[in-house]
Amino acid sequence: MSQLPVKRWDPSRREIVIQELRDRQAGYDRQTEAVVREIIATVKEKGDEALLDYTARFDRASLTPETLRVTEKEMETAWRAVDEPYRQALENACRQITAFHQKQRQESWFENPQEGIWLGQKVTPLDVAGVYVPGGKAAYPSSVLMNVVPARVAGVSRIVMATPPGPDGTIAPVILAAARVAGVTEIYKMGGAQAVAALAYGTATIPRVDKITGPGNQYVAMAKQLVYGQVDIDMIAGPSEILVIADETANAAFVAADMLSQAEHDEMASAVCITTSQALGEAVAQELEKQVAQLDREAIARESLERFGGIWVTATLAEAAALANDLAPEHLELCVANPFELVPAIRHAGAIFLGHYSPEPLGDYLAGPNHVLPTGGTARFASPLTVEDFVKKSSLIYYSRERLAEAADDIMLLAEREGFQAHKQAVAIRMKPEIG
Amino acid sequence: MSQLPVKRWDPSRREIVIQELRDRQAGYDRQTEAVVREIIATVKEKGDEALLDYTARFDRASLTPETLRVTEKEMETAWRAVDEPYRQALENACRQITAFHQKQRQESWFENPQEGIWLGQKVTPLDVAGVYVPGGKAAYPSSVLMNVVPARVAGVSRIVMATPPGPDGTIAPVILAAARVAGVTEIYKMGGAQAVAALAYGTATIPRVDKITGPGNQYVAMAKQLVYGQVDIDMIAGPSEILVIADETANAAFVAADMLSQAEHDEMASAVCITTSQALGEAVAQELEKQVAQLDREAIARESLERFGGIWVTATLAEAAALANDLAPEHLELCVANPFELVPAIRHAGAIFLGHYSPEPLGDYLAGPNHVLPTGGTARFASPLTVEDFVKKSSLIYYSRERLAEAADDIMLLAEREGFQAHKQAVAIRMKPEIG
Repeated sequence: MSQLPVKRWDPSRREIVIQELRDRQAGYDRQTEAVVREIIATVKEKGDEALLDYTARFDRASLTPETLRVTEKEMETAWRAVDEPYRQALENACRQITAFHQKQRQESWFENPQEGIWLGQKVTPLDVAGVYVPGGKAAYPSSVLMNVVPARVAGVSRIVMATPPGPDGTIAPVILAAARVAGVTEIYKMGGAQAVAALAYGTATIPRVDKITGPGNQYVAMAKQLVYGQVDIDMIAGPSEILVIADETANAAFVAADMLSQAEHDEMASAVCITTSQALGEAVAQELEKQVAQLDREAIARESLERFGGIWVTATLAEAAALANDLAPEHLELCVANPFELVPAIRHAGAIFLGHYSPEPLGDYLAGPNHVLPTGGTARFASPLTVEDFVKKSSLIYYSRERLAEAADDIMLLAEREGFQAHKQAVAIRMKPEIG
Repeated sequence: MSQLPVKRWDPSRREIVIQELRDRQAGYDRQTEAVVREIIATVKEKGDEALLDYTARFDRASLTPETLRVTEKEMETAWRAVDEPYRQALENACRQITAFHQKQRQESWFENPQEGIWLGQKVTPLDVAGVYVPGGKAAYPSSVLMNVVPARVAGVSRIVMATPPGPDGTIAPVILAAARVAGVTEIYKMGGAQAVAALAYGTATIPRVDKITGPGNQYVAMAKQLVYGQVDIDMIAGPSEILVIADETANAAFVAADMLSQAEHDEMASAVCITTSQALGEAVAQELEKQVAQLDREAIARESLERFGGIWVTATLAEAAALANDLAPEHLELCVANPFELVPAIRHAGAIFLGHYSPEPLGDYLAGPNHVLPTGGTARFASPLTVEDFVKKSSLIYYSRERLAEAADDIMLLAEREGFQAHKQAVAIRMKPEIG
């Protein structure tokens, strides 16, 4: 790749650019679906037997119902295998993530709009949450913290983790260490679509959960989509994205480094800079070229930049914000002189990083907000993973006889016009003096 | 059907009963999926032309891009066609629904956990919401109010309604009257999977929306499932359910009337009474027999009771509550002497109706809480439709240089161990004195 070109933003390309970035979101794949449907049906029917068969086949690990669950001894061994600074970093991260998510807790409430009327909303944690954690090369302890902490803060009493074993039947120590820090003790060695199926339907060994969250490969993602309804799921995540809005006060080296922090994820990742300064844009392009050459993942980052990267110059920050809203990026950095002033103009973004010293990885690991964020333009309607994802609400309605009597005519008329005679009757019967 | 038998609850049947009720939730249908996939692809490709073709074919209505949208004149005509008491009832309902939903509004917030750190959560309404309203025999104005009001209270600036026209190209006056009361002015005459596709992808005439809510037939439900991800959707609703917990203070005639108010919905609906009183159970069975015979929809209600109805006797109210939690019903009535005392024991229910004068239809039409509720046991993890369904959140993160410097080692270590060199570099580069 030659240096990324710096282009004046052309508003007539708006729809094309939006669609290009949106289309990266994992598409529907009939072949994957057929495979996954079969796995789910088999696990649903045969339970542990099927789960262990698939684990032998796909993870090349020989397990039994007795060895599916990670033991206390394994947890202890993993903890000792991890060095002290790393343990401390996990604990610091967990503390800050917990503190932030505690602000998201919602209370049950009620009101008495009139004497004889109670209305309310009861907030109840889910009974059982299932967290999927990928294994192998993509073992991300930060993902353990980000999925488990909201469930814990929500008050979910049983949190179950699933993560695929290596061929020797073990789990990476960093994953188990993160689970320990997050307070998870029920961990099963299983991965892929078979793990999702086991969590959704339960087996003799694996409990049925109410919600499955966490990232995974295309089979995991498809399995989550297919069991949605039987259980709840989080969003299906697409490739990573960063959009940096930069003015002339931005540091080109910082902006380039932040763009590369997403471009290194995979070839489908998108890293875009929108700037009001042509000079800054050109300096970012040069920095990208310089820094990308130093990366172990240079090939991946280059391909990502070439396919889905961009440096666009706009006339004003307002125009830059409007474009950011069109793209609704997962991560948005405001590398401008007055980042707080720009926040009200931002309508759609998963996470907003303000100023020159708030790089995206700060949010990935430590600041506290969740790193599970909407991708592929879904920030138009979706939110970061929150404590609210692990509770649900029930409405409460109480009317006294007198209050029902006042409302009776309206209810009966509304029911009648919709053709629901028995609905009407449920009110009418209570108004009969000889019965009520 | 002979009289519904009153049975002592047998806990060993727990799993069977749960699965029986859960399985009513609309299953996957390959044939419907193929048809709907084709419709979506065609509307996505050909836009208005395809939309109008399908409308001619399925609704037998001849429309043009110019006549797709309901005119102000049509709104006015519909309003005049509806009588004053009905208008008033709609307005009373809308006022109470609005008042309740206003309590669900969430504020943006921020905190400064340390000097030099800002963390926060920005709450932003969706830009465009699409409400689907069924037509024909199933024209439910209450559904217009229940879907539109939360979106309006959330602050959604553009609310678009889709509802299928009759063969003469008109919409039922009650639907348009409800839309007027709810404050919707952008209404398109379109239904089925083609309407969902048009809302999800947009056409020359129909705006692309961010979320589609509202009930519909199997084609609408399937279309919503298939466009989920491109846009957000509400839950796919299954058949209605009511579960009444009754003690010896309950009025058997009331309980029977309430059970029938759900049984009349359709043959797949479920109406169950759990009581601590054998005598009450038997009286309810007799009342059901007496009242069902008076219904226009007698056949439907009878089939529903026979297939999915039940009267079970438990030893205690605690046992009744545990069973209710297992079933996680859409509607739960507590027809007991002290309903408020029982609320803490209820973990899973869409809406809870307290006492002898809070029949389910009160919540369907007028009390204020939403009547869009989780069915088929999904109350384990899902909530009523709320204002929160029409907003999304963005995280805010600001660190000063000093605060980032303190956190730098942890972030870099966590990034490094996950193999993300560029993530680490985005922090490291800011710590170089010659650059930062």
